[in-house]
Order: sequence, then C-alpha cells, then structure tokens
Amino acid sequence: MFLYMSTPLFISLTFFTLVSATIHLHPLDPLNAMELTRVQTIVERSHPGSAFHYIGLAEPDKSSILSWLATSLNQSSTTPSPRQAMTIIRHHNQTHEIIVDLLTTTIIYNRVYTGFGYPSLSGEEVTMAMKLPLTYPPFVISVRKRGLKLDQVVCQPYPIGWFGVQGKREVKLACYYLEGTVNMHARPLEGISVVVDLEEMKISKYFDRVRVAVPKAEGTEYRLSQMRPSTVRATMVNRITVVQPDGPGFKIDGHIIRWANWNFHLGFDVRAGVIISLASIFDVQKQEFRRVLYKAYVSELFVPYMDPTEEWYYKTFFDAGEFGFGLCTLPLEPLRDCPANAVFIDAFYAGQDGKPLQIPNALCVFERYAGDVMWRHTEIGIPGEFIREVRPEVTLVVRMVSTVGNYDYIIDWEFKQSGSIVAKVGLSGILEVKGTAYTHTDKIKEEAFGTLLAENTLGIYHDHFLSYHIDLDIDGEANSFVKNKLVTKRVKDNSSLRKSYWTVEKVTARTESEANIKVGAEAAELVVVNPNKKTKLGNPIGYRLIPRSSPASSLLSDDDYPQIRGAFTKYDLWVTPYNNSEKWVAGLYADQSRGDDTIATWSERDREIENKDIVLWYTVGFHHVPSQEDFPVMPTLSGGFELRPTNFFEANPVLNSRVPMPVNWPNCTSPHK
Amino acid sequence: MFLYMSTPLFISLTFFTLVSATIHLHPLDPLNAMELTRVQTIVERSHPGSAFHYIGLAEPDKSSILSWLATSLNQSSTTPSPRQAMTIIRHHNQTHEIIVDLLTTTIIYNRVYTGFGYPSLSGEEVTMAMKLPLTYPPFVISVRKRGLKLDQVVCQPYPIGWFGVQGKREVKLACYYLEGTVNMHARPLEGISVVVDLEEMKISKYFDRVRVAVPKAEGTEYRLSQMRPSTVRATMVNRITVVQPDGPGFKIDGHIIRWANWNFHLGFDVRAGVIISLASIFDVQKQEFRRVLYKAYVSELFVPYMDPTEEWYYKTFFDAGEFGFGLCTLPLEPLRDCPANAVFIDAFYAGQDGKPLQIPNALCVFERYAGDVMWRHTEIGIPGEFIREVRPEVTLVVRMVSTVGNYDYIIDWEFKQSGSIVAKVGLSGILEVKGTAYTHTDKIKEEAFGTLLAENTLGIYHDHFLSYHIDLDIDGEANSFVKNKLVTKRVKDNSSLRKSYWTVEKVTARTESEANIKVGAEAAELVVVNPNKKTKLGNPIGYRLIPRSSPASSLLSDDDYPQIRGAFTKYDLWVTPYNNSEKWVAGLYADQSRGDDTIATWSERDREIENKDIVLWYTVGFHHVPSQEDFPVMPTLSGGFELRPTNFFEANPVLNSRVPMPVNWPNCTSPHK
Repeated sequence: MFLYMSTPLFISLTFFTLVSATIHLHPLDPLNAMELTRVQTIVERSHPGSAFHYIGLAEPDKSSILSWLATSLNQSSTTPSPRQAMTIIRHHNQTHEIIVDLLTTTIIYNRVYTGFGYPSLSGEEVTMAMKLPLTYPPFVISVRKRGLKLDQVVCQPYPIGWFGVQGKREVKLACYYLEGTVNMHARPLEGISVVVDLEEMKISKYFDRVRVAVPKAEGTEYRLSQMRPSTVRATMVNRITVVQPDGPGFKIDGHIIRWANWNFHLGFDVRAGVIISLASIFDVQKQEFRRVLYKAYVSELFVPYMDPTEEWYYKTFFDAGEFGFGLCTLPLEPLRDCPANAVFIDAFYAGQDGKPLQIPNALCVFERYAGDVMWRHTEIGIPGEFIREVRPEVTLVVRMVSTVGNYDYIIDWEFKQSGSIVAKVGLSGILEVKGTAYTHTDKIKEEAFGTLLAENTLGIYHDHFLSYHIDLDIDGEANSFVKNKLVTKRVKDNSSLRKSYWTVEKVTARTESEANIKVGAEAAELVVVNPNKKTKLGNPIGYRLIPRSSPASSLLSDDDYPQIRGAFTKYDLWVTPYNNSEKWVAGLYADQSRGDDTIATWSERDREIENKDIVLWYTVGFHHVPSQEDFPVMPTLSGGFELRPTNFFEANPVLNSRVPMPVNWPNCTSPHK
Repeated sequence: MFLYMSTPLFISLTFFTLVSATIHLHPLDPLNAMELTRVQTIVERSHPGSAFHYIGLAEPDKSSILSWLATSLNQSSTTPSPRQAMTIIRHHNQTHEIIVDLLTTTIIYNRVYTGFGYPSLSGEEVTMAMKLPLTYPPFVISVRKRGLKLDQVVCQPYPIGWFGVQGKREVKLACYYLEGTVNMHARPLEGISVVVDLEEMKISKYFDRVRVAVPKAEGTEYRLSQMRPSTVRATMVNRITVVQPDGPGFKIDGHIIRWANWNFHLGFDVRAGVIISLASIFDVQKQEFRRVLYKAYVSELFVPYMDPTEEWYYKTFFDAGEFGFGLCTLPLEPLRDCPANAVFIDAFYAGQDGKPLQIPNALCVFERYAGDVMWRHTEIGIPGEFIREVRPEVTLVVRMVSTVGNYDYIIDWEFKQSGSIVAKVGLSGILEVKGTAYTHTDKIKEEAFGTLLAENTLGIYHDHFLSYHIDLDIDGEANSFVKNKLVTKRVKDNSSLRKSYWTVEKVTARTESEANIKVGAEAAELVVVNPNKKTKLGNPIGYRLIPRSSPASSLLSDDDYPQIRGAFTKYDLWVTPYNNSEKWVAGLYADQSRGDDTIATWSERDREIENKDIVLWYTVGFHHVPSQEDFPVMPTLSGGFELRPTNFFEANPVLNSRVPMPVNWPNCTSPHK
C-alpha cells in the first residue's frame, strides 16, 4: 500500500542561498528550501535532536490572504506576505506543534500535543525500520526455515491502525521476496508479524504464525528492459506526439499559472501533494477576473482492505495522514508521464532532520489536446445555408503522481476554457497481494477475501477513497450549497395530454447535516451558489459538481474502528463552513487516530452553512475487486468529477473564442525516422 | 430537437458503376451505392412511386455470420457473403416491409405492416413540409400580425408523439425567426400550431393560440466570421496538434479496422449511425484473437421535454426511430471535429426516391494520445534500486457527429490496448428554447418548466437518454450476466479486531427480469461472463460495464404516454437474449408508436438469459437543466461507459507492450509560423 523513498537517488540536498527573500513570496507559496532551512535552524536551536515529521506553510486565514491580495493589487510595490511555518516534531517522545514566524524568525506557538494519534511517519525512520528484521535473529531463522535467501528479502512498513487499544508509536513490517524479480509486492512472506517501536527503533513484537507458499517470481516482471519483446504486431503502435510550434501557451510566474482565461496558484505540500488555490476565470463579458475556487487538494486517501485475518485486518491505510501524499510524490518521467509539451516543476520538503530535500519534476503542467470538441453545431435548416462551427477543446492539465508504496495515483487538475475544472485520479501500480496455498479457484473452500490473481497470489478486496477538499468561492466567500432536486409532477387537472413531467425544486442546505449526501440516491444537481449575486436575468450564480465516475461510499459498519477513523466515507459529499484548522478530513494525527478529529466530529455541531464561506468535501471512491488484468501491474482505472459553471456566466463563455491556427503536421521531421 | 438535411449542399448523387461486386463484401458491410441502387430498381419496379423510408442491410442471423467467418478463414478464396436488403416504403398510404436478395436480385419478403406507428420520416418529405406554412394564408397572416417578415421565417418538423389517440401520419411544425441571426433555434414563434398531413402533404390543422414575444437576435450568433474578435488574451491559446511522423498506425481494409491488438468491423446504418461489430482482441499470451463484442450501436435516443403546455407537451422525441441517427450524421470538419491525424470515411444511404446519397466524412478514425498513462509504477523500496516504468496511453477512436436539428451528439468509440472499449457521447449544439414574456426571473410567478437563458427565452428542462445495444460475445456467444454484489459482513465470532468487511456475492441473472437494474442503487460490479470458460486459475472470463457518468433513469410516470413508448428508460440496464429482430429498443416504428414493440414488452416473456447469447442495453442518460452557459450554443457535456476486461486475460495484456519511439517535436516547422 505504501512505501517510503528509501534512497536518496534523486533527492539532492539543496541549500538555496540565492533564493529570493521571503518578502517577495505569495502568501500561499509553499516553503522554499531557504525557508525550510530557517525553520530547521530555529527549531533545532530550541529543541535539539528533534525529528521533523512535518514542515509546511502555516497558511494564513483566508481573510488575511484576501486582504493581502487586495493590497497587492492596489499598490505598485508588493506587500510583504505573511510567512509562517507549521512544524510537527517528535522531541523526547512527545509530539510538538510549533509555529515559526519566518519574518521575525521566532517561534510564536509551541505546544505539546497530548491527544490521540501520531504525526505522519518520516521517510527516514521508515527506512531504518525496514532494515531491522534483516539482523533480527528470529526473523533470520524464519527466513531460513522457509528456505529463502536473506539478501533477497525486503520489508515494508505498515501503520498499525487503531482497534480499540492505545498503542505506542509503532509500525508493522510486512516482508517480501525478490529473487528473480523487482516486483517484491507480488511475493509476500505471509504469516510473519514484525512490530517495530519507532521511538526505540527496535523490534518490539515478533510472531511467525504460519508458513505460506511464497508466490513465484515468474510473471511478475514489468521492466521493459527485462521483457521478451512481443513478437506480434499487436502490441506496437505508431509514434505519436503533441506539437506546439510556438511553445506552451501558459506562463508560470513564481507559483502563479496563467493560461487562456484562467489564473491560479499552484502549491505543494508534503502531506497533500498538489494544491490548487485562487483559481479565477476571466469573464469576457464583464472584462474582469472572477473568483471560482479558493483551494482544492486531496485531503485524505483512505484504503481499507477487506481481510479480517491476523496479518491483514489492520491494513486500513490513510495515505495522506500516515505517509504524506506529497512525500510519496516521485519524479515524473518526461515524454511518458507527461507529454512532450509539458513543463516540469520541482517540489521541496523537509527530511526528518528538518533539512530541505528536493523532488525534481514533482509536477508537470501541459496543454492537452485530445482531439475533443469544445462546442459545435452544424446548421442545415436554413434554405441555401450550410453552417458548421466547431471549436476544438484545448485544456490545461496540472499533474502529480504519488506512489504510495505499491500503488500509483495519477492526480490531474484540468482547466477548461469553458469554465470547468475537472479533477481526475488514475489508479495504477501494483496490487497489495496475499500469499496463499491456493493455486486454483477450485481449491478455495472457505472465504478468501480476494481474487486469485496468480498461483499462490490473492488480490485482496479493498477500497480507495480520495477525499477532495473543495473550497469554492463563487464570486466571493459567502456561498450556499443547493440541491436542485428533480421531482416528478403529476398532471392532475387534465390540462395536458401528458400525465407527468419533472421540475426542479431547489433545496438550500441550512446546516451541515442537511448537506450530507449519498450521491445518486436521488436525482439532483449539486450546486454551490452565491446567494448574494445573480445573473442579469436573475438566476443564482453557481458551479455544480458532476461525478465522472460512480460514487462509492464505505460499506464498513459504522462501529468498525477503521470506519470511525475514516468516517468521511459514510457520505460521498459533506459541506462544512470554512475553518482554516479543518484541513484533514480524517484528522491531523491520522496514525493511530481514534476518529475524534474527523469531518464527522466537526460536523456534529451542525453549523450553519447557508450564505457562509463553505467547503465541499467530495469523495472519489473505488470499490476494488482485483482482476487478473491488474497483475502484475495494473492498467489505469480512472475516476473523478467536474466542477462546471451553471449560470455563473451570462452566456457561453467560449462563444467567441478563437480557433488556434492550424499546424501543418506533415512538415515535421524526426531524427528517429 | 431535430432537423433534416434540407439542402443537397454536400450530398452528391453517386452511381458507383465501378464498385466491387456484392460477392466480395463482408456480410456486415453497409449497403454500398450500387446495392442501394439495385434495391431501388427492384422495388420501384414492383411498387412504382414508392417513398423509401429506410433501406439498410437485412442483417443475417448471427449464426450465419459466424459460419461465413469460419468458412472464410478456412478457405483461401472468400466465400460469397449473404447480402439482403431490408427496406421500408410507403406505397399507396401503406407501410410495406420488403426484403430484397441482392445476389438473386429478387424480392423474398413483402408484407404490409398494419401495426401501430409509422416509419422514420424521410428527409425529403420533411423538407417539403417545412415550406408549407410560408404559402399558407392563415400562417402568413399570423406572421404579419406579429410584425415579422415572412422571408425570415423558417419552420421545423416535429413528430407528434402518441397521447392515447390514433393519429394519421402527421408532423407538427414549429417556426422560427432569423432576422439578424442564423440561430433560428433561439427565436421561436410561440403560440402557433401547424399540423401537416404527410400523405397529403398539406396543412391539416392550424391554430394561432397566443402571441409571445420573439426573443432577440442579439447574443445568438455563433459563427466565427461574424464575431467581434475578443480583444483579451483570455480566449486565445497557442497552436497545438498531434503528429504521427510515420502516419496513422491502423489499417482500413474494406470496413475492417485493424489497429494494435484490435480488429473490428466499422459499419453505418441510416437509423443507428455508426455500428461496431466483431471486435476481437489479440491475446499475446494465447497468441490468438479472442472475441469480445459482436455488435454495439446507439439503438435509440429519447429526448422528452418537461413542459406539459399546449405547444410543448408532445415534444418527446425518438431521434433514431423518428428521424434516423445516421441520417442526421453530417460531414465532420477536418482539424476541428477530428484531429490532424484522422482518417475520414464516407457513408451512403438512400433518399426518399431510393437512390443513393453520400455523406462525405461521415466518420473519422484516429489514434488518440491525450498525455495519459496506460500503466505505471515507480519502485524505490529496494535498496540501491530506482525503477520507473511508464507506458503512455495511445488509443483508437471512431467518431461520428449526429446533428439532430438543434442538438449535436458526438459519438465516440474508443479502443484501448489494455482491452477496454469506451463509449462516449458529447452533447453540444443548441438548446430547444421556448419564447416567453419573461425578461427576468423575478417576474416568473408560475411554473416556467425551464431556465431563463436570455430575455424572453426559456431553456425547457429535458432528458437525453441514449440506449446502447451492446452484444458482447465474450469468447463465444453463450454468456451470462452476473451482478458481483459487494456485501458487508459482520465479524461476529471475535476472530478479528475488525468488526466488518465486504465481500463479493456473485448473483447470476437467470431471466430478463433479474437483470433490470437501476445502476448505483446497490454496490455491485456488472459483469458479462462466459460461464463455460475460465482462466487457468479458474476465474470466470468476463468484461464489466463501468459507468463513466451518473446513471439517469426516467422520472416520468410509468403510465405517461411518452414513458410507455420510451419504457427502456425505466432501468439503466436491461439484458435480453439475442434476437436478430430486436434491434430498436423503443420499437421499429417509433413515430407515433404505442409501446407495444419495446424492450419492456419483449422482456415480459422473462426469457432465460443464463448461459445464453445475451445482449446488454445500457442507457447513458442526462437530466438536462439548462444553464445560461448553454446559450446560444452549448459547451460539450460528456457521458459514457467503459467495457473493461475482468479476468478475461490471464494477466495485464499490455505488460510487454512496447513504448512508441519518441518524436522530437521541436523539429517541426509550420508554414503558419
């Protein structure tokens, strides 16, 4: 399910002595390498020997961001932006929350966290933990008993979850076998439980409960260099690429991206990964930029497995909170992860020692032309006229890939000129499999909790729940969430030959509990409106959320421990009032959390959300029943949603968009030809 | 909602004297121009003066197709294919069904149809009907009374539906005003009812019930040539195109398309439009082509409007059955409707006189590279190793655009190397609007049945229901439909610290009634399996259907006339046993149909569907609440579904796919630069 960056292969320490001063930054810019270093220096001074589990931007409240923006716009010189860093450290076995002001270089907040749960694991401690079994005599014996080679064993750390009992800061290790493959995920050593105390950094519990056949290496390879090239025409396609003779059409100014009619801020956080902020769209009719989205990011990624047996029951992972969705962001491969016209952006985060680390090519930005049509019409109904107007669709995509151990999540944010923002996630990578004695389904006599994918290999049933934090500010902060229910009306008065029709009943959610929805349970449009503004015609100005894949809420019982922790999955959609401290839908301290800091607990207050600054939390969910096609590496499965303007504009905003000049592609030559 | 090709602007009569003889055709090939001519000649001889409402392939039964294929494969010379044409004519006010054998050039079947409903309208009769009001004195007076210019009026034909009373073969006309725009759809003349008797070709009823303001022309223009070019950067994007230095990678052999690991037959029918048949995928492991899809096409497109008032209640259109989804296929525009690397294909159909007409560029085929990832994994969990394997996703797309009057439907069939077939529909074009006195929503005091889109302009609520006929033949004809229900299990014996998990319960539908589903009502995978074959591991071989947009079944009452006719919309999914005569989900004679020949009536027999040759009928539905953005032309809204292999292959079928060689794009030059 997850795995840390255990090697510094592409992570070079960088000390940016030449980086522009903090004073010129946008208040939403992620901490740069110099700022990270500054935080480390200050905190290390007061708390020597700290382990840094998080350093990120202590994001100013929305009001101060907005007033900074207003001031910046009104003045020729840039106003210094508020810059504070939030850090979570472990120091003397305690969790500290420290806020450092980067302008005054002082600690302005410092408290010991005494609640439930622990901070995200650091990459370094995980790397250390992984190695412990290899020198732990009982484990060495277990490996020998199985007739395996110790130098071919690799272990991976797994958070232990919470099952009703207070736990120390521990992880479990699951171990895998390489020999003959690099796909260790496909070769688990079942039956062994290794618990590591992370504070002591030693194995605290060890069981070798049962011996299970290790799946074969055969058929698990996925490296091109090691594949027997296919001998059939069937697997080769002709070369194809995207060409922009004038170069990309977007501009990157610091962390601000400007493209076509969109402006937005592109951030990065070691926990959330990519963050889209302050997205505004230019309204041609009004001749001004209008606010759409204050912020959006993946707040949590919950992946519970559905096997209650001893070595698997606890596998109920919170990839953002336990590991860091940003920490697991790995460098994108040019020409394969992103097309030829992509521009790449690096990201920075702090290692366990607090010093800055760089992820090269962490994000890419590119214009996408997939051959689709933005709008069209052919008119042949007017005698003597033949009218055909077609506008090709070119969009802008921001991409990140987070590889949480075995799984790869391709996260796209796509901006359309027509005003839509589309969030997509592609699931690829390698399944978490379980070793089994079974070699054929005929032999399965009791519940197996998964699909037999190869001999001795079960793909365990599981879910992927990505909770998107979506803070729309439609023409301002004060917004309402409206269900446009489509309701059937009977014609009862014989006024029509029709007996029925449907119409729209607008139901505004007044408080949080009224907004919780299992999407699809009833026919309804889900709209965020600005109730204080209307179009010239009087329609409420809004954006609606359209699922692009089947909603999937949790099937776990409400009282089950992982469900208590991942309670956001009870509904596909929640709406809360904006609260700068409510960032992580399953809680800030997700490791061994107990569900006391989740959206379900926040929402118990049933706060007012009508005509307030509101945040939507939408879950893109997948119930994953593995199939043999997913083995040994899984073809991408996609899901997502669209945020689409609905009476936001007075009319089609791309009505008078120009068509890009054609490119005469046969003029291209290629050195490969 | 619809409109005929009223001008022959791009329709040139073609007489193919050089066309290869019928004997060399594939039995699923659409009738070519010579064959159409032959049918016309034969039928005209026996039924002089006939009006041809349909000529298409009388498709042989599946068994004879399959035996032809088997014979063809086993012999070096091609076996003559069975070639018969089905034609529906009106002759002496009667509907005749005639089957012509093209090899023997004889009529082998001829009966008068005496049931309910009428054949599809012909383009020519509609064109004639449209002109009638302009010389009809009461109408001329109505126009004059409204202070409008007669030469700026254009009328459009609308099927009258069925509302409990037997009707003659009539259409209603709705009329529109041009002056100052070519977007007549935006300027309805409300309050006038014109009924045309199509047999007499004269106006049979006329009412001028009420006068309503005609919406303004201002703001309705959508032609690039007439637009004031936008003066802001916001609407311009840089040039972008797709390049394939070695040309397209697919081969077109007659109507067979071969690309990567896919083979399929690409057909066209004047009623259905594009038809995909005999899609097989090469299994690298088995080194053979395996059957996936026998046939798929849009069987019906039902568009009911939700305004029960006098001039609108009847607007409940069956675009395929009343008009012809293929007949409304209009030529695609190179570089805009399809990318630069597309190959275009013409289509042929018969006019009302039975003579062949050509639709140039009716279909396009292209390889799509949208910058997406087919599969990927980065592995950093092995000490000393950094592994990153990424395969870009290149797919093959077949596209058609059908413009049914005001609306444009972009129909895509996308083939993925990983085995998926994705059906997409993009909705664009122009809304069907209603004239109204309202100029602001504040003035709306009673139910308006729509959204105020512009002054005096209501976008009436409506649905789009596209029923896809999907005849999967997974490794052969005998298949079963299985709901893989995901059901929550409680852990009751304290054997685990978990309290719950979900597992899969496979429920095979034994008869038709067991397969009807409102998709999303329960967590389930929808799978078609071949119960007679299993993978080596013993998993049932199958394909599953994954919605790519929210399912939307009908909200009309069961007893409402349009719902009786469009009963397929009661469920998102139906499954029937293969029956060559069950092609049109809402009936063969859709015009004024009474619902006695729909899938709901076929399914009343509750036939067995387990381990049978089965057909899925899945509806891609949209409840459309118009928004101002949809005016005066609508940005594309997309929906669809994916057919994805699930234990069809023994493993990931694109594991050893090669990566196309990179193209060094900066080497491109362009004459436009």
